[in-house]
Amino acid sequence: MSQPLKFYFDFLNQSSRALYIFLEASKIPFEAIPISMLKGEHLTGEFRDKVNRFRKLPAITDHGYQLSENTAIFRHLAREKLVPEHWYPRRHLGRSRIDEYLAWHQSNMGVACTEYFQQKWLVPYLQKTRPSDNAVNVAGKQLEHTLNDFEQLFLNSRKFMMGDNISYADLSAICEIDQPKSIGFSAFKNRNKLARWYDSVREELGPHYKSVYEEFEAKLKLNNQGQQGVAQAQAL
Amino acid sequence: MSQPLKFYFDFLNQSSRALYIFLEASKIPFEAIPISMLKGEHLTGEFRDKVNRFRKLPAITDHGYQLSENTAIFRHLAREKLVPEHWYPRRHLGRSRIDEYLAWHQSNMGVACTEYFQQKWLVPYLQKTRPSDNAVNVAGKQLEHTLNDFEQLFLNSRKFMMGDNISYADLSAICEIDQPKSIGFSAFKNRNKLARWYDSVREELGPHYKSVYEEFEAKLKLNNQGQQGVAQAQAL
Repeated sequence: MSQPLKFYFDFLNQSSRALYIFLEASKIPFEAIPISMLKGEHLTGEFRDKVNRFRKLPAITDHGYQLSENTAIFRHLAREKLVPEHWYPRRHLGRSRIDEYLAWHQSNMGVACTEYFQQKWLVPYLQKTRPSDNAVNVAGKQLEHTLNDFEQLFLNSRKFMMGDNISYADLSAICEIDQPKSIGFSAFKNRNKLARWYDSVREELGPHYKSVYEEFEAKLKLNNQGQQGVAQAQAL
Repeated sequence: MSQPLKFYFDFLNQSSRALYIFLEASKIPFEAIPISMLKGEHLTGEFRDKVNRFRKLPAITDHGYQLSENTAIFRHLAREKLVPEHWYPRRHLGRSRIDEYLAWHQSNMGVACTEYFQQKWLVPYLQKTRPSDNAVNVAGKQLEHTLNDFEQLFLNSRKFMMGDNISYADLSAICEIDQPKSIGFSAFKNRNKLARWYDSVREELGPHYKSVYEEFEAKLKLNNQGQQGVAQAQAL
Protein backbone atom coordinates (compact mmCIF):
# COMPACT_ATOMS: atom_id res chain seq x y z
CA MET A 1 0.00 0.00 0.00
CA SER A 2 1.22 3.47 -0.79
CA GLN A 3 1.93 5.80 2.11
CA PRO A 4 -0.23 8.93 2.22
CA LEU A 5 1.23 12.41 2.22
CA LYS A 6 2.13 13.41 5.76
CA PHE A 7 2.18 17.11 6.64
CA TYR A 8 4.01 18.28 9.78
CA PHE A 9 3.06 21.76 10.91
CA ASP A 10 2.41 24.30 13.67
CA PHE A 11 -0.21 26.99 13.12
CA LEU A 12 2.00 29.51 14.96
CA ASN A 13 4.20 29.30 11.85
CA GLN A 14 3.06 31.30 8.81
CA SER A 15 4.30 28.85 6.14
CA SER A 16 2.56 25.98 7.95
CA ARG A 17 -0.72 27.89 7.67
CA ALA A 18 -0.17 28.76 4.00
CA LEU A 19 0.55 25.16 3.00
CA TYR A 20 -2.27 23.75 5.15
CA ILE A 21 -4.77 26.10 3.47
CA PHE A 22 -3.29 25.22 0.06
CA LEU A 23 -3.64 21.47 0.73
CA GLU A 24 -7.23 21.83 1.94
CA ALA A 25 -8.34 24.22 -0.79
CA SER A 26 -6.74 22.00 -3.47
CA LYS A 27 -8.39 18.87 -2.01
CA ILE A 28 -5.06 17.02 -1.78
CA PRO A 29 -5.49 14.09 0.65
CA PHE A 30 -3.04 14.31 3.56
CA GLU A 31 -2.45 13.24 7.13
CA ALA A 32 -2.10 16.30 9.39
CA ILE A 33 0.55 15.90 12.10
CA PRO A 34 0.77 18.88 14.47
CA ILE A 35 4.20 19.51 15.99
CA SER A 36 4.62 22.00 18.85
CA MET A 37 7.43 24.46 18.16
CA LEU A 38 7.02 26.08 21.59
CA LYS A 39 7.69 22.68 23.17
CA GLY A 40 10.66 22.18 20.81
CA GLU A 41 9.18 19.04 19.26
CA HIS A 42 10.74 19.97 15.88
CA LEU A 43 14.23 19.80 17.40
CA THR A 44 14.32 16.28 18.78
CA GLY A 45 13.26 12.65 18.58
CA GLU A 46 11.57 11.04 15.62
CA PHE A 47 10.92 14.35 13.86
CA ARG A 48 14.62 15.24 13.73
CA ASP A 49 15.81 11.72 12.93
CA LYS A 50 13.17 10.47 10.52
CA VAL A 51 11.22 13.44 9.17
CA ASN A 52 13.33 16.53 8.82
CA ARG A 53 17.07 16.80 9.22
CA PHE A 54 16.71 20.61 8.94
CA ARG A 55 14.67 20.61 12.17
CA LYS A 56 12.24 23.04 10.58
CA LEU A 57 8.51 23.35 10.01
CA PRO A 58 6.60 22.86 7.82
CA ALA A 59 7.80 19.52 6.43
CA ILE A 60 6.31 16.64 4.48
CA THR A 61 6.96 13.01 3.76
CA ASP A 62 5.49 11.85 0.45
CA HIS A 63 5.75 8.10 -0.29
CA GLY A 64 8.55 8.13 2.28
CA TYR A 65 10.38 11.02 0.55
CA GLN A 66 11.26 13.75 3.08
CA LEU A 67 11.07 17.38 2.04
CA SER A 68 11.58 20.69 3.83
CA GLU A 69 11.26 24.40 2.93
CA ASN A 70 7.86 25.93 2.28
CA THR A 71 8.47 26.91 -1.38
CA ALA A 72 10.05 23.55 -2.22
CA ILE A 73 7.04 21.73 -0.72
CA PHE A 74 4.65 23.96 -2.66
CA ARG A 75 6.45 23.30 -5.96
CA HIS A 76 6.65 19.59 -5.18
CA LEU A 77 2.87 19.40 -4.64
CA ALA A 78 2.22 21.48 -7.78
CA ARG A 79 4.29 18.96 -9.79
CA GLU A 80 3.27 15.68 -8.18
CA LYS A 81 -0.43 16.18 -7.27
CA LEU A 82 -3.56 17.38 -9.03
CA VAL A 83 -3.54 21.08 -8.20
CA PRO A 84 -5.86 23.76 -9.61
CA GLU A 85 -3.95 25.79 -12.20
CA HIS A 86 -4.67 29.21 -10.67
CA TRP A 87 -2.29 28.61 -7.73
CA TYR A 88 0.75 28.47 -10.05
CA PRO A 89 -0.42 29.33 -13.57
CA ARG A 90 1.61 28.50 -16.66
CA ARG A 91 -0.14 31.07 -18.92
CA HIS A 92 1.48 34.40 -19.76
CA LEU A 93 4.60 33.42 -17.82
CA GLY A 94 2.61 33.68 -14.58
CA ARG A 95 4.76 30.98 -13.06
CA SER A 96 7.91 33.09 -13.52
CA ARG A 97 6.18 36.07 -11.92
CA ILE A 98 5.16 33.96 -8.91
CA ASP A 99 8.71 32.58 -8.59
CA GLU A 100 9.95 36.18 -8.59
CA TYR A 101 7.57 37.11 -5.79
CA LEU A 102 8.35 34.01 -3.71
CA ALA A 103 12.08 34.81 -3.88
CA TRP A 104 11.45 38.45 -2.90
CA HIS A 105 9.11 37.26 -0.17
CA GLN A 106 11.74 34.99 1.38
CA SER A 107 14.35 37.75 1.70
CA ASN A 108 12.04 40.66 2.47
CA MET A 109 8.46 40.07 3.65
CA GLY A 110 9.38 36.86 5.47
CA VAL A 111 12.35 38.39 7.25
CA ALA A 112 10.53 41.59 8.31
CA CYS A 113 7.34 39.90 9.58
CA THR A 114 9.26 37.15 11.38
CA GLU A 115 11.60 39.61 13.09
CA TYR A 116 8.67 41.68 14.38
CA PHE A 117 6.83 38.59 15.62
CA GLN A 118 9.97 37.29 17.33
CA GLN A 119 10.81 40.56 19.09
CA LYS A 120 7.25 41.37 20.15
CA TRP A 121 5.98 37.88 21.02
CA LEU A 122 8.27 34.85 20.69
CA VAL A 123 11.44 36.02 22.45
CA PRO A 124 9.46 37.47 25.43
CA TYR A 125 7.41 34.24 25.55
CA LEU A 126 10.46 31.96 25.60
CA GLN A 127 12.48 34.14 27.97
CA LYS A 128 9.49 35.03 30.16
CA THR A 129 10.29 38.75 29.94
CA ARG A 130 8.70 41.90 28.53
CA PRO A 131 9.51 42.76 24.89
CA SER A 132 12.44 45.12 24.38
CA ASP A 133 10.89 48.45 23.28
CA ASN A 134 13.95 49.28 21.24
CA ALA A 135 14.06 45.94 19.40
CA VAL A 136 10.31 46.11 18.66
CA ASN A 137 10.73 49.68 17.36
CA VAL A 138 13.57 48.74 15.02
CA ALA A 139 11.65 45.71 13.73
CA GLY A 140 8.49 47.81 13.32
CA LYS A 141 10.29 50.42 11.21
CA GLN A 142 11.74 47.75 8.93
CA LEU A 143 8.29 46.19 8.60
CA GLU A 144 6.68 49.53 7.63
CA HIS A 145 9.32 49.90 4.94
CA THR A 146 8.78 46.34 3.65
CA LEU A 147 4.98 46.71 3.53
CA ASN A 148 5.40 49.92 1.54
CA ASP A 149 7.65 48.07 -0.92
CA PHE A 150 5.15 45.22 -1.14
CA GLU A 151 2.30 47.60 -1.94
CA GLN A 152 4.34 49.51 -4.49
CA LEU A 153 6.06 46.57 -6.22
CA PHE A 154 3.37 43.89 -6.20
CA LEU A 155 -0.12 45.35 -5.80
CA ASN A 156 -1.99 47.13 -8.55
CA SER A 157 -5.57 47.90 -9.49
CA ARG A 158 -6.39 44.22 -9.96
CA LYS A 159 -7.98 42.00 -7.34
CA PHE A 160 -5.02 39.70 -6.71
CA MET A 161 -1.27 39.96 -7.19
CA MET A 162 -1.32 38.10 -10.51
CA GLY A 163 -4.66 39.44 -11.78
CA ASP A 164 -8.19 38.10 -11.44
CA ASN A 165 -7.26 34.77 -9.86
CA ILE A 166 -5.72 33.98 -6.51
CA SER A 167 -2.26 32.35 -6.57
CA TYR A 168 0.21 30.96 -4.06
CA ALA A 169 1.86 34.40 -3.98
CA ASP A 170 -1.28 35.88 -2.36
CA LEU A 171 -1.58 32.99 0.07
CA SER A 172 2.07 33.25 1.17
CA ALA A 173 1.77 37.00 1.63
CA ILE A 174 -1.46 37.02 3.66
CA CYS A 175 -0.20 34.34 6.08
CA GLU A 176 3.05 36.24 6.56
CA ILE A 177 1.31 39.57 7.19
CA ASP A 178 -0.93 37.81 9.73
CA GLN A 179 2.10 37.26 12.01
CA PRO A 180 2.54 40.94 12.98
CA LYS A 181 -1.17 41.74 12.45
CA SER A 182 -2.30 39.10 14.96
CA ILE A 183 -0.23 40.69 17.73
CA GLY A 184 -1.44 44.24 17.17
CA PHE A 185 0.63 45.72 14.32
CA SER A 186 -1.42 48.19 12.22
CA ALA A 187 -0.56 46.99 8.75
CA PHE A 188 -3.32 48.89 6.94
CA LYS A 189 -2.88 52.43 8.26
CA ASN A 190 -2.33 54.63 5.17
CA ARG A 191 -2.28 51.52 3.01
CA ASN A 192 -5.68 51.33 1.30
CA LYS A 193 -4.42 49.18 -1.55
CA LEU A 194 -3.02 46.65 0.93
CA ALA A 195 -6.29 46.64 2.91
CA ARG A 196 -8.39 46.05 -0.23
CA TRP A 197 -6.09 43.24 -1.39
CA TYR A 198 -6.12 41.64 2.08
CA ASP A 199 -9.93 41.59 2.17
CA SER A 200 -10.14 40.10 -1.33
CA VAL A 201 -7.72 37.29 -0.45
CA ARG A 202 -9.43 36.52 2.85
CA GLU A 203 -12.83 36.43 1.18
CA GLU A 204 -11.61 34.22 -1.68
CA LEU A 205 -10.02 31.69 0.68
CA GLY A 206 -13.24 31.52 2.68
CA PRO A 207 -13.68 28.86 5.38
CA HIS A 208 -10.25 27.25 4.70
CA TYR A 209 -8.53 30.43 5.78
CA LYS A 210 -11.03 31.28 8.53
CA SER A 211 -10.66 28.05 10.49
CA VAL A 212 -6.85 28.03 10.29
CA TYR A 213 -6.62 31.69 11.32
CA GLU A 214 -8.94 31.09 14.27
CA GLU A 215 -6.80 28.20 15.48
CA PHE A 216 -3.72 30.43 15.16
CA GLU A 217 -5.38 33.17 17.21
CA ALA A 218 -6.52 30.66 19.83
CA LYS A 219 -2.93 29.38 20.19
CA LEU A 220 -1.62 32.92 20.67
CA LYS A 221 -4.30 33.64 23.27
CA LEU A 222 -3.74 30.40 25.15
CA ASN A 223 -0.02 31.00 25.39
CA ASN A 224 -0.53 34.65 26.34
CA GLN A 225 -2.67 33.48 29.26
CA GLY A 226 0.02 31.02 30.33
CA GLN A 227 2.53 33.86 30.09
CA GLN A 228 0.37 36.18 32.20
CA GLY A 229 -0.06 33.37 34.75
CA VAL A 230 3.72 33.16 35.07
CA ALA A 231 4.02 36.95 35.37
CA GLN A 232 1.33 37.04 38.05
CA ALA A 233 2.96 34.17 39.95
CA GLN A 234 6.29 36.01 39.78
CA ALA A 235 4.65 39.22 41.06
CA LEU A 236 3.15 37.48 44.12
CA MET B 1 11.77 40.05 -35.33
CA SER B 2 11.89 38.51 -31.90
CA GLN B 3 13.99 40.23 -29.26
CA PRO B 4 16.89 38.15 -27.92
CA LEU B 5 17.30 37.34 -24.25
CA LYS B 6 19.11 40.21 -22.52
CA PHE B 7 21.12 39.43 -19.40
CA TYR B 8 22.11 42.28 -17.03
CA PHE B 9 24.89 41.38 -14.63
CA ASP B 10 27.97 42.33 -12.61
CA PHE B 11 30.64 39.69 -11.98
CA LEU B 12 31.17 41.07 -8.47
CA ASN B 13 27.75 39.57 -7.74
CA GLN B 14 27.66 35.80 -7.11
CA SER B 15 24.24 35.14 -8.69
CA SER B 16 25.30 37.05 -11.81
CA ARG B 17 28.26 34.68 -12.16
CA ALA B 18 26.13 31.56 -11.55
CA LEU B 19 23.56 32.52 -14.19
CA TYR B 20 26.19 33.66 -16.71
CA ILE B 21 27.98 30.31 -16.40
CA PHE B 22 24.62 28.51 -16.66
CA LEU B 23 23.68 30.42 -19.83
CA GLU B 24 27.08 29.76 -21.45
CA ALA B 25 27.28 26.11 -20.44
CA SER B 26 23.69 25.50 -21.65
CA LYS B 27 24.39 27.28 -24.97
CA ILE B 28 21.40 29.61 -24.54
CA PRO B 29 21.86 32.59 -26.90
CA PHE B 30 21.88 35.88 -25.00
CA GLU B 31 23.07 39.47 -25.12
CA ALA B 32 25.39 40.20 -22.18
CA ILE B 33 24.89 43.68 -20.69
CA PRO B 34 27.33 44.49 -17.88
CA ILE B 35 26.03 46.92 -15.22
CA SER B 36 28.42 48.39 -12.63
CA MET B 37 27.07 48.01 -9.11
CA LEU B 38 29.98 49.96 -7.63
CA LYS B 39 29.00 52.91 -9.85
CA GLY B 40 25.35 52.43 -8.81
CA GLU B 41 24.21 51.83 -12.39
CA HIS B 42 21.56 49.36 -11.12
CA LEU B 43 19.87 52.12 -9.10
CA THR B 44 19.14 54.70 -11.76
CA GLY B 45 18.25 55.58 -15.32
CA GLU B 46 17.09 53.14 -17.95
CA PHE B 47 17.92 50.08 -15.83
CA ARG B 48 15.60 51.15 -13.02
CA ASP B 49 12.84 52.45 -15.30
CA LYS B 50 12.81 49.90 -18.09
CA VAL B 51 14.65 46.77 -16.94
CA ASN B 52 14.24 46.10 -13.25
CA ARG B 53 11.94 47.87 -10.85
CA PHE B 54 13.61 45.94 -7.99
CA ARG B 55 16.91 47.73 -8.79
CA LYS B 56 18.75 44.44 -8.36
CA LEU B 57 21.19 42.29 -10.31
CA PRO B 58 21.06 39.89 -12.06
CA ALA B 59 18.04 40.64 -14.24
CA ILE B 60 16.77 39.60 -17.66
CA THR B 61 14.40 40.75 -20.32
CA ASP B 62 13.05 37.92 -22.48
CA HIS B 63 10.89 38.96 -25.46
CA GLY B 64 10.37 42.19 -23.53
CA TYR B 65 9.31 40.38 -20.34
CA GLN B 66 11.27 41.69 -17.34
CA LEU B 67 12.31 39.29 -14.61
CA SER B 68 14.37 39.62 -11.43
CA GLU B 69 15.62 37.26 -8.70
CA ASN B 70 18.29 34.68 -9.46
CA THR B 71 16.19 31.57 -8.74
CA ALA B 72 13.18 32.91 -10.66
CA ILE B 73 15.40 33.61 -13.68
CA PHE B 74 16.93 30.12 -13.46
CA ARG B 75 13.49 28.46 -13.35
CA HIS B 76 12.24 30.68 -16.17
CA LEU B 77 15.14 29.61 -18.40
CA ALA B 78 14.68 25.94 -17.45
CA ARG B 79 11.03 26.21 -18.54
CA GLU B 80 11.31 28.43 -21.61
CA LYS B 81 14.63 27.40 -23.19
CA LEU B 82 16.35 24.19 -24.21
CA VAL B 83 18.34 23.37 -21.12
CA PRO B 84 20.31 20.15 -20.41
CA GLU B 85 18.32 18.03 -17.95
CA HIS B 86 21.13 17.59 -15.40
CA TRP B 87 20.86 21.21 -14.21
CA TYR B 88 17.33 20.67 -12.86
CA PRO B 89 16.52 16.95 -13.21
CA ARG B 90 12.97 15.62 -13.09
CA ARG B 91 13.97 12.01 -12.26
CA HIS B 92 13.74 10.65 -8.72
CA LEU B 93 12.23 13.94 -7.51
CA GLY B 94 15.60 15.63 -8.05
CA ARG B 95 13.81 18.87 -8.85
CA SER B 96 12.22 18.94 -5.39
CA ARG B 97 15.60 18.31 -3.78
CA ILE B 98 17.16 21.19 -5.75
CA ASP B 99 14.26 23.49 -4.80
CA GLU B 100 14.87 22.56 -1.17
CA TYR B 101 18.55 23.45 -1.46
CA LEU B 102 17.90 26.73 -3.29
CA ALA B 103 15.49 27.83 -0.53
CA TRP B 104 18.01 26.87 2.19
CA HIS B 105 20.73 28.61 0.19
CA GLN B 106 18.82 31.89 0.02
CA SER B 107 18.30 32.12 3.79
CA ASN B 108 21.60 30.61 4.93
CA MET B 109 24.54 30.29 2.54
CA GLY B 110 23.61 33.46 0.65
CA VAL B 111 23.15 35.53 3.79
CA ALA B 112 26.38 34.34 5.48
CA CYS B 113 28.65 34.72 2.42
CA THR B 114 27.19 38.11 1.50
CA GLU B 115 27.53 39.47 5.02
CA TYR B 116 31.21 38.45 5.18
CA PHE B 117 31.93 39.95 1.76
CA GLN B 118 30.15 43.17 2.68
CA GLN B 119 31.91 43.63 6.02
CA LYS B 120 35.36 42.67 4.76
CA TRP B 121 35.31 44.27 1.31
CA LEU B 122 32.24 46.19 0.12
CA VAL B 123 31.50 48.47 3.08
CA PRO B 124 35.19 49.49 3.46
CA TYR B 125 35.37 50.03 -0.32
CA LEU B 126 32.29 52.27 -0.44
CA GLN B 127 33.12 54.17 2.75
CA LYS B 128 36.86 54.33 2.03
CA THR B 129 37.73 52.98 5.47
CA ARG B 130 39.37 49.90 6.97
CA PRO B 131 37.07 46.93 7.71
CA SER B 132 35.68 46.77 11.25
CA ASP B 133 37.55 43.88 12.95
CA ASN B 134 34.57 43.16 15.14
CA ALA B 135 32.03 43.06 12.28
CA VAL B 136 34.35 40.83 10.20
CA ASN B 137 34.79 38.49 13.19
CA VAL B 138 31.07 38.16 13.79
CA ALA B 139 30.40 37.54 10.09
CA GLY B 140 33.28 35.04 9.95
CA LYS B 141 31.90 33.00 12.84
CA GLN B 142 28.45 32.84 11.24
CA LEU B 143 30.07 31.76 7.96
CA GLU B 144 32.03 28.94 9.66
CA HIS B 145 28.78 27.71 11.15
CA THR B 146 26.95 27.88 7.81
CA LEU B 147 29.72 26.05 5.92
CA ASN B 148 29.62 23.29 8.56
CA ASP B 149 25.85 22.99 8.06
CA PHE B 150 26.31 22.92 4.29
CA GLU B 151 28.86 20.13 4.50
CA GLN B 152 26.76 18.13 6.94
CA LEU B 153 23.33 18.63 5.33
CA PHE B 154 24.12 18.61 1.62
CA LEU B 155 27.44 16.90 0.86
CA ASN B 156 27.90 13.16 0.91
CA SER B 157 30.22 10.57 -0.61
CA ARG B 158 28.99 11.35 -4.12
CA LYS B 159 30.70 13.71 -6.53
CA PHE B 160 28.00 16.40 -6.64
CA MET B 161 25.19 17.46 -4.33
CA MET B 162 22.56 15.51 -6.25
CA GLY B 163 24.75 12.53 -7.22
CA ASP B 164 26.88 11.87 -10.29
CA ASN B 165 25.74 14.90 -12.27
CA ILE B 166 26.23 18.59 -11.65
CA SER B 167 23.08 20.65 -11.02
CA TYR B 168 22.18 24.29 -10.46
CA ALA B 169 22.48 23.65 -6.71
CA ASP B 170 26.24 23.04 -7.11
CA LEU B 171 26.63 26.07 -9.36
CA SER B 172 24.81 28.39 -6.94
CA ALA B 173 26.83 27.10 -4.01
CA ILE B 174 30.29 27.41 -5.62
CA CYS B 175 29.66 30.98 -6.80
CA GLU B 176 28.43 31.96 -3.33
CA ILE B 177 31.42 30.39 -1.56
CA ASP B 178 33.72 32.23 -3.98
CA GLN B 179 32.64 35.58 -2.44
CA PRO B 180 34.43 35.06 0.92
CA LYS B 181 37.08 32.75 -0.61
CA SER B 182 38.21 35.38 -3.12
CA ILE B 183 39.00 37.86 -0.32
CA GLY B 184 41.02 35.47 1.81
CA PHE B 185 38.55 33.42 3.87
CA SER B 186 39.82 29.85 4.46
CA ALA B 187 36.72 27.87 3.58
CA PHE B 188 38.45 24.47 3.34
CA LYS B 189 40.36 24.28 6.63
CA ASN B 190 39.13 21.11 8.40
CA ARG B 191 36.55 20.64 5.64
CA ASN B 192 37.91 17.89 3.36
CA LYS B 193 34.50 16.99 2.00
CA LEU B 194 33.87 20.62 1.02
CA ALA B 195 37.31 20.86 -0.61
CA ARG B 196 36.74 17.68 -2.66
CA TRP B 197 33.29 18.83 -3.76
CA TYR B 198 34.62 22.30 -4.69
CA ASP B 199 37.35 20.79 -6.89
CA SER B 200 34.86 18.47 -8.61
CA VAL B 201 32.48 21.33 -9.42
CA ARG B 202 35.26 23.62 -10.66
CA GLU B 203 36.67 20.87 -12.86
CA GLU B 204 33.27 19.94 -14.28
CA LEU B 205 32.42 23.57 -15.17
CA GLY B 206 35.80 23.92 -16.91
CA PRO B 207 36.52 27.01 -19.02
CA HIS B 208 33.04 28.55 -18.46
CA TYR B 209 33.76 28.85 -14.76
CA LYS B 210 37.44 29.70 -15.17
CA SER B 211 36.97 32.75 -17.38
CA VAL B 212 34.15 34.19 -15.25
CA TYR B 213 36.09 33.63 -12.02
CA GLU B 214 39.18 35.31 -13.50
CA GLU B 215 37.13 38.36 -14.49
CA PHE B 216 35.71 38.50 -10.95
CA GLU B 217 39.20 38.35 -9.44
CA ALA B 218 40.47 41.02 -11.82
CA LYS B 219 37.60 43.33 -10.79
CA LEU B 220 38.42 42.83 -7.12
CA LYS B 221 42.10 43.52 -7.75
CA LEU B 222 41.45 46.62 -9.84
CA ASN B 223 39.18 48.11 -7.20
CA ASN B 224 41.61 47.18 -4.43
CA GLN B 225 44.32 49.13 -6.25
CA GLY B 226 42.03 52.13 -6.58
CA GLN B 227 41.28 51.82 -2.88
CA GLN B 228 44.98 51.65 -1.96
CA GLY B 229 45.60 54.69 -4.14
CA VAL B 230 43.03 56.62 -2.12
CA ALA B 231 44.53 55.38 1.16
CA GLN B 232 48.02 56.40 0.04
CA ALA B 233 46.81 59.82 -1.09
CA GLN B 234 45.08 60.31 2.27
CA ALA B 235 48.30 59.29 4.09
CA LEU B 236 50.40 61.90 2.26
